[in-house]
Amino acid sequence: MRISELSERSGLPVQTIKFYIREGLLPKGTPCAATRAEYDQAHLERLRLIRALREVGDLPVAAIRRIVEALEDEQVSLHDLFGRTQYALGPHASTAGHDPDLQQARDDVDAFLTELGWQVTEQAPARELLAQTLVALRRLGFATGPDELRPYARAAAALAEHETGRLAEDTPRAQAVRGMLVTTVLYEQVLIALHRLAQEDASARRFSGR
Amino acid sequence: MRISELSERSGLPVQTIKFYIREGLLPKGTPCAATRAEYDQAHLERLRLIRALREVGDLPVAAIRRIVEALEDEQVSLHDLFGRTQYALGPHASTAGHDPDLQQARDDVDAFLTELGWQVTEQAPARELLAQTLVALRRLGFATGPDELRPYARAAAALAEHETGRLAEDTPRAQAVRGMLVTTVLYEQVLIALHRLAQEDASARRFSGR
Repeated sequence: MRISELSERSGLPVQTIKFYIREGLLPKGTPCAATRAEYDQAHLERLRLIRALREVGDLPVAAIRRIVEALEDEQVSLHDLFGRTQYALGPHASTAGHDPDLQQARDDVDAFLTELGWQVTEQAPARELLAQTLVALRRLGFATGPDELRPYARAAAALAEHETGRLAEDTPRAQAVRGMLVTTVLYEQVLIALHRLAQEDASARRFSGR
Repeated sequence: MRISELSERSGLPVQTIKFYIREGLLPKGTPCAATRAEYDQAHLERLRLIRALREVGDLPVAAIRRIVEALEDEQVSLHDLFGRTQYALGPHASTAGHDPDLQQARDDVDAFLTELGWQVTEQAPARELLAQTLVALRRLGFATGPDELRPYARAAAALAEHETGRLAEDTPRAQAVRGMLVTTVLYEQVLIALHRLAQEDASARRFSGR
């Protein structure tokens, strides 16, 4: 297809596509005349992924380039590719100085993940998000032991199992990464919205008369 | 107790406590001398709630005053009180103009909540969060029908059931509202963090070799 069709199908302006080619995010098309190049389905998939990384993940070009490089390197497993994408999303915790409460919370997160038997790297940013949230809960006097966390871990594991199971064996890598990104960011919003609606429903059934 | 002890136990400076009294968020203490007043457990609970509404919910004084008024009005049920608090948290959607995709998504949210049989008011802000997220997913070409949403609704309902069940029958109203607020805002963060960690684990087990 021509660049105009690529633009139409990806929903991105021609100038943006040319910018991504210059930045090395998208391979050049196959030249077919002095001023024309031909693009294929892989270009379209790549553009859809870049667009999702920009719009859904809010990632800068440099971060997208690192993901695209891993995408092109067949030595990098799909799991590592998911990891790089998820870790690029953050949260990028700014841990200022030494905080003994935060240290304790990090140790508790480690112990809890060990109890669950989950395979998670030391660098996973969600560890820090969890540790910081535990600190906030404790400062407000709320219990945050394994008994409190387990119901959330169970719900999260069931959803993650469902989400990875949704992915067909032969899905192209760019499409698989885009699916995982969108699941992480947007289905997280779906989950939050439904959680609040479910709380209202549970409260209506239980506390309307109180 | 004296205001100094109230300050120490609530973790709030004396000036802040005096400000809340002036603003009508906290009842005056019982005068016991020309320049002294006595405060009780109810004052402490109220201050802990105000602090959580400020720090966790990030609510302005006017919004806190409306919640506190509902708290003091025994005609307002605990369920309505939870609703006012949750709705004050937002999200406060800015729905600019007429968007047919958003209209469609709102109708779909209505139909889905009807299918679930959940008791949720028309004004619940989480409806709008869900509708806007569905629009974003659809623009990226992702399916968002009831089959896609149901696993998230199931997980959300199980957690909400657990969360409301945690609340003892005789919990004072201020403490119950604080617990629900913290659950909504902070345990939501716990859920997000654990969801990301669970995704990494599920991906490690499934895609390490791909």
